[in-house]
Amino acid sequence: MAKRITDRLRLPQGPVDLASIPTDATPGFKGNKVEGQKALATLAPTLGELQEKLYAEGRTGGSRRVLLVLQGMDTSGKGGVLRHVAGLCDPQGLHIKAFKAPTAEERKHDFLWRIRKELPPEGYIGAFDRSHYEDVLIVRVHDLVPRATWSRRYATINRFEQQLADKGTTIIKCFLHVSKEEQQARLAARLDDPTKYWKYNPADVDERAYWDDYQEAYAAALEKCANDSAPWFVVPSDRKWYRNWAITNLLIEHLQDLDPKWPLASYDVDAERARLADS
Amino acid sequence: MAKRITDRLRLPQGPVDLASIPTDATPGFKGNKVEGQKALATLAPTLGELQEKLYAEGRTGGSRRVLLVLQGMDTSGKGGVLRHVAGLCDPQGLHIKAFKAPTAEERKHDFLWRIRKELPPEGYIGAFDRSHYEDVLIVRVHDLVPRATWSRRYATINRFEQQLADKGTTIIKCFLHVSKEEQQARLAARLDDPTKYWKYNPADVDERAYWDDYQEAYAAALEKCANDSAPWFVVPSDRKWYRNWAITNLLIEHLQDLDPKWPLASYDVDAERARLADS
Repeated sequence: MAKRITDRLRLPQGPVDLASIPTDATPGFKGNKVEGQKALATLAPTLGELQEKLYAEGRTGGSRRVLLVLQGMDTSGKGGVLRHVAGLCDPQGLHIKAFKAPTAEERKHDFLWRIRKELPPEGYIGAFDRSHYEDVLIVRVHDLVPRATWSRRYATINRFEQQLADKGTTIIKCFLHVSKEEQQARLAARLDDPTKYWKYNPADVDERAYWDDYQEAYAAALEKCANDSAPWFVVPSDRKWYRNWAITNLLIEHLQDLDPKWPLASYDVDAERARLADS
Repeated sequence: MAKRITDRLRLPQGPVDLASIPTDATPGFKGNKVEGQKALATLAPTLGELQEKLYAEGRTGGSRRVLLVLQGMDTSGKGGVLRHVAGLCDPQGLHIKAFKAPTAEERKHDFLWRIRKELPPEGYIGAFDRSHYEDVLIVRVHDLVPRATWSRRYATINRFEQQLADKGTTIIKCFLHVSKEEQQARLAARLDDPTKYWKYNPADVDERAYWDDYQEAYAAALEKCANDSAPWFVVPSDRKWYRNWAITNLLIEHLQDLDPKWPLASYDVDAERARLADS
């Protein structure tokens, strides 16, 4: 039996050296882009049925749910995963949230306050484009709060995620791993295509000066917050088609582990048939 | 040039007689189910590009947005439209809300309070599964508030929708028109398939006793709240494939009327190219 993508991409506990993990590999997939895109399309019905079962479970008293957390450098493809992977789901059972720089209101509260408000309801698949991890990433790189504050947050995050897991949330944390060269190429592509001008932000170039600091901050977050109840997955993301295929497989495999079942009838089926026929 | 679906399905102002409008017709489409499903699939790229342009506009200062309001009897397919039509959209630019019986908190406020909270943000497509119209439908049929209260709501709704339209919201109100026999068949199908048991609610059979009252309440809502800035569309919905195809066309045609454009660059493209190359 083929090794699961979950097992291939899960970050082992211990020291993290991102530079040693390839950004352009395709673990678990032999084939090219066209084949990868076709393979993704064939996964849609499987994902759809699993999602509907989880949703049905949630509508009939179940409390389980799934939360996909997407982190990665600018252009790494967080939005692309929402479009091409979350886009395969029935939007009725999907809760998407993109976290931007915190608002004045959000800044008045602890850093998890705005996260808690966007957790997926029972039976839903939630997907976060950025997350509470920004509070140990951009915040650390740009000294937005004192070191004493952000350095405590790793433990806070671990407790928070453990609580979520204990209450039935399956957390899938994905680091979309791209190279500095690939980021440059993607930014350049936005400048070469007028339909993509709006996606380009000059500040993204400024941030490239902090590339190494970000990689260090990511390595710390991945190392300090890799635990059994909420592991990190490092997804090689220089190839968009592989990234989408791999994360779809992560979702499917986690849903298969949950193994949601179609709810039984809570009424007498034959009696209802008779009532309906008379109605 | 073929007549637009918008023009074919728009309810004219004046007295409404729902019984005279076929539930199983396919206005504007010649073909069978398989052809209809294929036709729907071919619309996806067009809808996708229009949605992305609207979203891009919203991200760069635009205030326009679209709100699809879905109303109809149980089993008429409101959820199916969310799955198969809204499901064609990029979920990043989609805001879906299913309105259930109001909570204790919601009942403390006026009936539009919970609606206002769920309006789509700038650049988004919003989709409501039920809406403020429930407050002149189930509420009227079951005397949940005095007649003097619900009878004032039609005018309140018209003012509310006019305000939304004035602020840049394109409202597309769809009545999913099914026959009483088709509803019976769809409920029976849920009882014949264990993967659909969870969708069946015995109360739905009880509600069938009020079928005529609901049709009357719908006719009143459609008649009193059909105005140029937020017209009603009566979508024959006995054929699911036609319903999905027709509503997708309504969305596309309204987006084409909005004609969103890719935003211009707000920066010097050549200068950015040079900065990026050096980064």
